[in-house]
Amino acid sequence: MGTAERLIASTQQLLWERGYVGTSPKMIQQHAGAGQGSMYHHFAGKPDLALQAIRRSAEELRSQAEEKFREPGPAYARIAAYMLREREALRGCRVGRLAHDPEVVASPILREPLAETFAYLRRRIEELLVEGRERGEFAEAMVAAEVAAALVAVVQGAYVLAQSAGSVEVFEQAVRGGLHLLAAYTA
Amino acid sequence: MGTAERLIASTQQLLWERGYVGTSPKMIQQHAGAGQGSMYHHFAGKPDLALQAIRRSAEELRSQAEEKFREPGPAYARIAAYMLREREALRGCRVGRLAHDPEVVASPILREPLAETFAYLRRRIEELLVEGRERGEFAEAMVAAEVAAALVAVVQGAYVLAQSAGSVEVFEQAVRGGLHLLAAYTA
Repeated sequence: MGTAERLIASTQQLLWERGYVGTSPKMIQQHAGAGQGSMYHHFAGKPDLALQAIRRSAEELRSQAEEKFREPGPAYARIAAYMLREREALRGCRVGRLAHDPEVVASPILREPLAETFAYLRRRIEELLVEGRERGEFAEAMVAAEVAAALVAVVQGAYVLAQSAGSVEVFEQAVRGGLHLLAAYTA
Repeated sequence: MGTAERLIASTQQLLWERGYVGTSPKMIQQHAGAGQGSMYHHFAGKPDLALQAIRRSAEELRSQAEEKFREPGPAYARIAAYMLREREALRGCRVGRLAHDPEVVASPILREPLAETFAYLRRRIEELLVEGRERGEFAEAMVAAEVAAALVAVVQGAYVLAQSAGSVEVFEQAVRGGLHLLAAYTA
């Protein structure tokens, strides 16, 4: 892996663990085993490097979600596969955790990959809900856009609850509760 | 307000805006208009002061929630009142946002008020769901503990979505979606 790639991968790890405010250029250089000169040769600075890292993490997350959305089977099962996929509950979401980072939220450029990721997740789940509703899987009255937003929120909130409690079990309870509610809409 | 109280109130504000990692003792002193000597006279250090501030914010949050839980009316309406209560969606939850703070999560002492707050919210909503189920408001099959965890997660996740999108409307969509799902359980 070249130096630029190592710097991006290290920044991804540090942003996941410590957030943007908690990650210094020095930490990134040490983690990547790269010098200061090398970092500034490849990137304009911490914001530029962080933007590449956040975009990369957002792409990885979307591609993992898309794998589940594309599984064969009814809409409910595909949404459940997304919500139940293996996660590191106590590390938090590599993308969502940055929504609580004051400097990410204050920067429209750094915030954009977050906005895109959640817009994508909501749109894909909404599409599955509409598809399921048309097939008679869900009740006619379902407001798909709002339910999709709620299901994405359940996963993000489940991380908050799990990290607060220091318990993976809490993550699973919240996600199962969300699916339980969705199941009430199925025939 | 005495100096100790001003220091606690300032720390509450800064933790809400910037998190624990993003808040320095100097920022707290400036915000409170207090000197370094005065801060260390009243508190052993940043962790001690932060613990008082987090406990205070957690108490405030629980008391605001309890007001809604105690309203008269059916369980669904009381849960809805909690979920729809006026919030500053783009500031995030003053307690939940700290679950993404690496130094809060790493400290069992600082994390405790977070754990307590979410355990309290889950327990109270579970009680309301059980009460509603016994009165015939909800379907018999409802797994109250899991659904309660999911509803608390919806609110916390709604903050993540709203802050990512820079949109209050997104918060409201997710919360309405959660209530919409819960309504499917009512007769």
